Amino acid sequence: MQHFVFGGKGFIGQNLCKELISFGEKVVVVDKNIWGNEFVFPLLHQSDLFSYLELDINKDKNKIKDFISKSELSSKDTVVWHLAANSDIQSGVYDVSLDLENTFQTTISILDIMRSQSLNKIIFSSSSAVYGAAEMPHGGYTEASPTQPISNYGAMKLASEAIIRSAFEQWLQFALVFRFPNVIGYPATHGAIFDFIKKLQIDGSRLEVLGNGMQNKPYLHVSDLVDAMLNLVGKKVDNTFNIFNIASTFPNVYVHEIAQLVVERVAPNAEIRFGHSAGGWIGDMPQVEFNISKLIGSGWCARMSGHEAVIKTVEDNLSGKLINDYH
Amino acid sequence: MQHFVFGGKGFIGQNLCKELISFGEKVVVVDKNIWGNEFVFPLLHQSDLFSYLELDINKDKNKIKDFISKSELSSKDTVVWHLAANSDIQSGVYDVSLDLENTFQTTISILDIMRSQSLNKIIFSSSSAVYGAAEMPHGGYTEASPTQPISNYGAMKLASEAIIRSAFEQWLQFALVFRFPNVIGYPATHGAIFDFIKKLQIDGSRLEVLGNGMQNKPYLHVSDLVDAMLNLVGKKVDNTFNIFNIASTFPNVYVHEIAQLVVERVAPNAEIRFGHSAGGWIGDMPQVEFNISKLIGSGWCARMSGHEAVIKTVEDNLSGKLINDYH
Repeated sequence: MQHFVFGGKGFIGQNLCKELISFGEKVVVVDKNIWGNEFVFPLLHQSDLFSYLELDINKDKNKIKDFISKSELSSKDTVVWHLAANSDIQSGVYDVSLDLENTFQTTISILDIMRSQSLNKIIFSSSSAVYGAAEMPHGGYTEASPTQPISNYGAMKLASEAIIRSAFEQWLQFALVFRFPNVIGYPATHGAIFDFIKKLQIDGSRLEVLGNGMQNKPYLHVSDLVDAMLNLVGKKVDNTFNIFNIASTFPNVYVHEIAQLVVERVAPNAEIRFGHSAGGWIGDMPQVEFNISKLIGSGWCARMSGHEAVIKTVEDNLSGKLINDYH
Repeated sequence: MQHFVFGGKGFIGQNLCKELISFGEKVVVVDKNIWGNEFVFPLLHQSDLFSYLELDINKDKNKIKDFISKSELSSKDTVVWHLAANSDIQSGVYDVSLDLENTFQTTISILDIMRSQSLNKIIFSSSSAVYGAAEMPHGGYTEASPTQPISNYGAMKLASEAIIRSAFEQWLQFALVFRFPNVIGYPATHGAIFDFIKKLQIDGSRLEVLGNGMQNKPYLHVSDLVDAMLNLVGKKVDNTFNIFNIASTFPNVYVHEIAQLVVERVAPNAEIRFGHSAGGWIGDMPQVEFNISKLIGSGWCARMSGHEAVIKTVEDNLSGKLINDYH
C-alpha cells in the first residue's frame, strides 16, 4: 500500500508514519510545516519508503496533483490520510480563519486533489469536538449521537465530515472518519500537559490551571491511537462510509489529576492554582465521554490507561527534544 | 426594527421583505442578483422603507461594512436575515464550489460583517437537507435528531449552523435557525413544480419525472413559511440559540401527486413518465418528515395544505411574470 499523509508532520502524523514504515508501507507526507519543526523519529529520515513534500495543501494544490499524476499510483492501493488541521484550538476561537483554512478548506482541497487524480479512499481525523453542546447520553456519545459543536474547530471538523459524506454519495469509494479523544504523547505541540510543562519550566513555584480542574475527558496515548486506526483500516471494506469514536476502556482523567502528575515530575514544590470556570476556554467541553462499543466490536482495546498515558507523555517530553523547539 | 436581508432578492427573500414592509418595518436587501431578475412585488419598488444594495456578500464585504457603519444602526433594533445560498442544489452535486461559496462562505462573511459592526442578532435559513442519511425517527426528524447530510448543499447548511452556534458561544446575542421544508410559491426559480411547468411549456405531450414519483416531502407555501418565521421572531428572547423545523401539520405530498396537479393545469393531455430511482438526483432525500412539535408549541400552524399550496403555486406562476424571466 501507498499512504498519502496530509498533515503528516504534525504530532499524530509523525507517529502514524513511523508505524506505517515499520510495517514496510510506502509513505508520502504533504505538510506546510507550520511549526517549522523536524521529523523527530530517525526511522522517517532513514527509510527509502518515506518521502516528504513541504507544500501548502490549499495553495499548492496543482503541484500536489502534478506529483501524484507523475507517481502513477494505482487508486486501488493508495490511501489518503487527512490529518491536516489547525491544532491551536483556542486561537481559533478568536480567529475563525484559522479553522476555516487549515481545518476545513484543507478538506475541500484534498477531495479536489483526490477526485482529479482518481484516488478514492480517505481516512479523516475528526474530533470529539463535533459533539459540543449535544446532550450526552448515559454511557457517552455514540457515533450516531447529535452533533452540536460550540467551537470553530469542532464546527469545521463537522463540516469536513459532512462534505466527505457528500463526496461518498457521489464518487468516493471508501471513507473512514475517526473521532479522536484528547490525544497525548510526544512530540505534541499543544494541550494541557504541554502547557503545564511549559509553564512550570518558566516558573517552578506555581501552576495556574485554566478552569476549575474538574474537566473530565478521555485521554489516549498516541501509540494506542495509531494502533486503533491501523486496526480499523485493516478491516476496511470498500463502499463504506464509517465513523468510529476512538478512546480506551479505562476511566477518564480529570484535569486536576493531570496537573498533579505533571507537578510531581517537573516541579514537585509548585502550588497548583485552579480557576473558577467549568471549561478551560470558550468552546471547551468540560465533560466528554465516548461510547466506544463500535470500536470494541472491532476487537481492539487500548493498552495504556489515562494515568499511564499522562505519565509516559510527561517523561517522553522531558527526555525528548526540548519542547520549546516545537513552538 | 431594521432588517438586513442577505439574499433578499431570492424567491423567499422577496416574500419575506414584502411582509416586513407591509408591517411598517425598515428593510435593506443585500444581494448579488445572481439570476438578474427584478423585484416582482410592487410594494418593494414603491416603499420608502425599502432599500437595495446589489453587492456580493463575499467580495464586497468592506462596502457592506461601510454602508452599515454610515447607517448608525442600533444593534438592539437590527436583525440580520441570512437567506443567501446556492439555490441550484443539483448543480452543487457536481461542483462543490457553488455551495462552498454561496451557501457557506456567505455565512462566514455575514458573521464577519456583523461582528465588525456590532450587530448581534441573526436569523438563518437552514434546510431539511441537514438530516440526510440520518435514521428518521417515528414521527419525523426533531431539531435534536442526528444530522448526516448527503449533498454538498446540506453539508454547507450544517456547516453554517455549526459556525453560527460557535459564534453564539463567543459573541452573538441571538440566533434563530429555521430548517426549511420544500418551500413553494412565486417567484421560485427552482424545484419540482417550476421544472414541471417549464418542461410542459416546451413539450406539452409528456412529462419526464426524475425518480419514481414516490418521493414524499413536506411542501409549504412561501406565505405560510414567512408567517411562521415572523411569528417565531416575534417571540424571540435574547441570549438564545434556537433551531426550528418549519412545516405544516397537513400530510406530506408525493411527487407523483405534484406531477398530476401540474399536468392538469398546464397540459392536460400530457403523459407522465416516471424514472426508476427512489431519489430524483444524487443527494436527494426521497422521504422526509419533520417533527414540528416545537413549532406547534409556539402556537403557530399553517393555513394551506400541501395540495392547496401546489395548486396556488402553479396558478401564481402561470398568471405571474413568465417564469423564463427567472432563468
